[in-house]
Amino acid sequence: MIRFFKRSNLKESKYNEQTKLTAEATVLLRLVVDGDKGDSHSLKHQCNAASPTLPQPDSIWPSQHSKESGCTNWAVLVYGLHKHKAEQADANRLEAIEPTSSHPIFSQEEVTKHRSLEDGVWVTYKGGVYDITEFVAMHPGGNKILLAAGGPLEPFWALYAVHNQEHVLEILSEYKVGELSAEDLKKQQDVKSSDPYSSDPERHPVLRINSLKPFNAEPPAEILTDNYITPSALFFKRNHLPVPQVDPASYRLSVEGLPGGAMTLSLEDLKTKFPKHTITATLQCAGNRRAEMNKVKLVKGLNWGIAAISNASWSGAKLRDVLLAAGYGPDVAKWAHHVQFEGLDKDVTGTTYGSSIPINKAVSEEGDVLLAYEMNGETLPADHGFPVRVVVPGTVGARNVKWLGKIVVSAEESNSHWQQNDYKGFSPGTDWDTVDFKSAPAVQELPIQSAITAPADGAMVDRSEEEVTVQGYAWSGGGREVVRVDVSVDGGKTWQVAQLRTSDKGQVYEPSPPPGRAWAWKLWEVTVPIPPGAKELEIICKAVDNSYNVQPDTVAPIWNLRGVLSNAWHRVTVKVREDEDEE
Amino acid sequence: MIRFFKRSNLKESKYNEQTKLTAEATVLLRLVVDGDKGDSHSLKHQCNAASPTLPQPDSIWPSQHSKESGCTNWAVLVYGLHKHKAEQADANRLEAIEPTSSHPIFSQEEVTKHRSLEDGVWVTYKGGVYDITEFVAMHPGGNKILLAAGGPLEPFWALYAVHNQEHVLEILSEYKVGELSAEDLKKQQDVKSSDPYSSDPERHPVLRINSLKPFNAEPPAEILTDNYITPSALFFKRNHLPVPQVDPASYRLSVEGLPGGAMTLSLEDLKTKFPKHTITATLQCAGNRRAEMNKVKLVKGLNWGIAAISNASWSGAKLRDVLLAAGYGPDVAKWAHHVQFEGLDKDVTGTTYGSSIPINKAVSEEGDVLLAYEMNGETLPADHGFPVRVVVPGTVGARNVKWLGKIVVSAEESNSHWQQNDYKGFSPGTDWDTVDFKSAPAVQELPIQSAITAPADGAMVDRSEEEVTVQGYAWSGGGREVVRVDVSVDGGKTWQVAQLRTSDKGQVYEPSPPPGRAWAWKLWEVTVPIPPGAKELEIICKAVDNSYNVQPDTVAPIWNLRGVLSNAWHRVTVKVREDEDEE
Repeated sequence: MIRFFKRSNLKESKYNEQTKLTAEATVLLRLVVDGDKGDSHSLKHQCNAASPTLPQPDSIWPSQHSKESGCTNWAVLVYGLHKHKAEQADANRLEAIEPTSSHPIFSQEEVTKHRSLEDGVWVTYKGGVYDITEFVAMHPGGNKILLAAGGPLEPFWALYAVHNQEHVLEILSEYKVGELSAEDLKKQQDVKSSDPYSSDPERHPVLRINSLKPFNAEPPAEILTDNYITPSALFFKRNHLPVPQVDPASYRLSVEGLPGGAMTLSLEDLKTKFPKHTITATLQCAGNRRAEMNKVKLVKGLNWGIAAISNASWSGAKLRDVLLAAGYGPDVAKWAHHVQFEGLDKDVTGTTYGSSIPINKAVSEEGDVLLAYEMNGETLPADHGFPVRVVVPGTVGARNVKWLGKIVVSAEESNSHWQQNDYKGFSPGTDWDTVDFKSAPAVQELPIQSAITAPADGAMVDRSEEEVTVQGYAWSGGGREVVRVDVSVDGGKTWQVAQLRTSDKGQVYEPSPPPGRAWAWKLWEVTVPIPPGAKELEIICKAVDNSYNVQPDTVAPIWNLRGVLSNAWHRVTVKVREDEDEE
Repeated sequence: MIRFFKRSNLKESKYNEQTKLTAEATVLLRLVVDGDKGDSHSLKHQCNAASPTLPQPDSIWPSQHSKESGCTNWAVLVYGLHKHKAEQADANRLEAIEPTSSHPIFSQEEVTKHRSLEDGVWVTYKGGVYDITEFVAMHPGGNKILLAAGGPLEPFWALYAVHNQEHVLEILSEYKVGELSAEDLKKQQDVKSSDPYSSDPERHPVLRINSLKPFNAEPPAEILTDNYITPSALFFKRNHLPVPQVDPASYRLSVEGLPGGAMTLSLEDLKTKFPKHTITATLQCAGNRRAEMNKVKLVKGLNWGIAAISNASWSGAKLRDVLLAAGYGPDVAKWAHHVQFEGLDKDVTGTTYGSSIPINKAVSEEGDVLLAYEMNGETLPADHGFPVRVVVPGTVGARNVKWLGKIVVSAEESNSHWQQNDYKGFSPGTDWDTVDFKSAPAVQELPIQSAITAPADGAMVDRSEEEVTVQGYAWSGGGREVVRVDVSVDGGKTWQVAQLRTSDKGQVYEPSPPPGRAWAWKLWEVTVPIPPGAKELEIICKAVDNSYNVQPDTVAPIWNLRGVLSNAWHRVTVKVREDEDEE
């Protein structure tokens, strides 16, 4: 038992050292205390918190719902340690026992016997055998770790790249109890370690990658508004998990929760049994412009710039038509409040990506929710949900489930991590110690948004040009049409109204959409005189929608711990280069 | 002709003197240049602009659609004068001819012969006879002045209180051509000069009056949130015209524009032929909190405080049901885009108050638009539209037409002044020189709003209390539910989340409304420690709705020339009184 405590101490000391007990670490540990968010981000963030540089974007978004008391115990322990034992960390480290290098040899059969807390939890990693029973309750990712019990860690770590860090190996090494027999190790190696991301599609090299596995990337802002319809290859990508390989011939969509029982549709059914509708809709990630929030105070999430938003033409069946065909009617309307979506993309535990939308949005004639099988007139690309995705126009990207496998009509919202414990907004005063995810609604419609795509921040303009042309995009959620964009080149003292367009330059503008169905962005442009004497221009844009919602002036008052809903005025600063022969 | 020019010069000089050719006056004059907005406000504002004090609230909102070229000519003239003749004003005044005091006597019969520009336009006022032919084109209220031709001005000026100013009499005096015969004057006086506002109802004395005729008043902010349901007597009043006297027995509502021809409904029909629905809905004037915009730069409109918003329970027939009964159906849906409303309140020309809403809002099951005949469980009060008003929940007050006389299903918006040339938002850079009312949509849904009702601005809090309790209201348009109110007592550096309630204290809270149907405000309260050392607290509130729309930080960037949509963070400053025996 002494060894046990020393090991524990070592573990604690490592955690404390890595976190340096920063506030960020504390609140992330607290995540686990709350009991509903065991999250392997925690570990990553602890690392980041210890780093002298800005954190790299989080690379994964696992779904974890560990509610086991073991997890909570660990968290309470660590959380308590943070409060009371900071000073002991260094002392404890001195007491740490180096792992012995002489370990017994175990067969795979022996390892496989240890698959539970009762029998012990053993795993293998590169030929080593580890008894991680004590660590299960401490695993930042919750008891999902038990899925690896009795076998190799490699396929799990391949899915969750957060483990590919030196300190994770250091922690693991503390639990080594033996070596796998050479024979069994060879067998393991013969089974090619599969990278679940290995079948992800090729991507356009111009994309700016925020995370490779899962793939998250945005186009460079300077080309974002070159096209009114974003080419699919440049459309921002936001995957939560590996891209699933779906065979269109055997693909089946299941529609459940309705009185007649489940309805199953093939891709062909979807294409032939329902009218095909095409809408132009802008999708935006809840985290678009998160980088600006990170400048106020670090948040948790991918460090998106201003281009986690794109506009496409989508074609498919109306969800409304499918639900009606599946038995939706007035009787169902009495109890049904939500339509849940499940993707075919899944994590190592088999948990699929999921979300839900309010039933009214789903069944309204004006809701325009599509089960889309085409994007920009072509087959839906793999990164965008082949063969079928939901397009919920006016609604945050996260509800536009890709690789759609199941639709469930329900009285309840989706209970997925992304619906319940993510993609919600909080007060700037709310931190990971105080956050109650139940207190805020899941983001559905997004607020008014706009950003400047040209000139770029830090660019030069020549005084001799006399004018500067400012360009960008503007969009609002809920089908609210952007009616005006104001642009200032003097930091907000004076404002010019930009020209809006709803097509590529030179093309005939589309007529205004019906009220409440303005799903697509507007591009805008205005040419403004360079103010005399200005050495630098602070250029700002702000948009107004037809409910006269406006963007807030500054970022700090809308800062939130998840860094979502970042829609303050967008600002870029450009320098004015004076002419050499200036009078 | 010399006299003509001298008179004209005098007139111009007076206008110029009164306006001091301020920018405000110029842009108001420009109203008339635009040709579709001859508006007697202009005159009022010219006065205000010359005043060293803040302007009094505008007292009327006439409907004027003069498109006569004469009107434009005058405006062009004056507008040109502003630009080129400022210096001539004093010189011209010196040349002015004082009106002679010896005038011929005219009979009423003679006066009555002058009722057109061709025959001359004569009017009488308190026994004087005036030839105002030349003034018609200069009348800020447009050619509506012709309606008074050949008769007394008194009943018209009684309607438009803007005329009750000394300088208006001075202008009139320049056009005096004679005296009315004593006999005819006596006849006139025998006809009691009728004040169209004389039958307006009694009002609660606590109301703070912004304009008496028409009546516009708000409750004191400090009592506004004492009740979740605002008592009808305290509910803010916003009349555009005199309150019409409607006999409920002979009242008829006409529903027009549908294939079956007009349908006429009595009050009894409305009550018995359609199901009665009750909704709780907050109404807000587009000009609520205009006073804060006036502090940035003067705007045109009543100087509302923060209480041009109230919450009531409304009962009546659903507009949807009435439209369906009148013949609305899929065929109509193909061409109908708007539902127009006409009030029974009318100006001296017979023009009724009017507005329209999008057809989808009117016919949607979730739109909850009522033809209300009860308010807070009692017969609709006269000031709120007896016997029937429209309640368009989630939509600006101006569309909630009172004393409803006519409903018209149409492909077009209402062409009323209030729909076309008022109640629209513009960029802060847009002034009366540059405004194009066609460029902005009519306000329908209002943006997210909140304000602090306690403590009052300038109040004292005692340091010994240690805490300060902040209270207020929050509401958003379009049925978007308020999900959070943040309060700061340190000028926005830190924020606390307030508690929201949807009923009076101690009562059972109503359950959350269905998505998109949150029509009623939320009251909120939070108790915050008084920061140590603070001598003064800048208290701020800001609200968030379930589309995560937020209020802008400051007023100036949302300033607009009509002073509508004033929804920046609300701020009050209170002083901290230190204890005398403080350590």
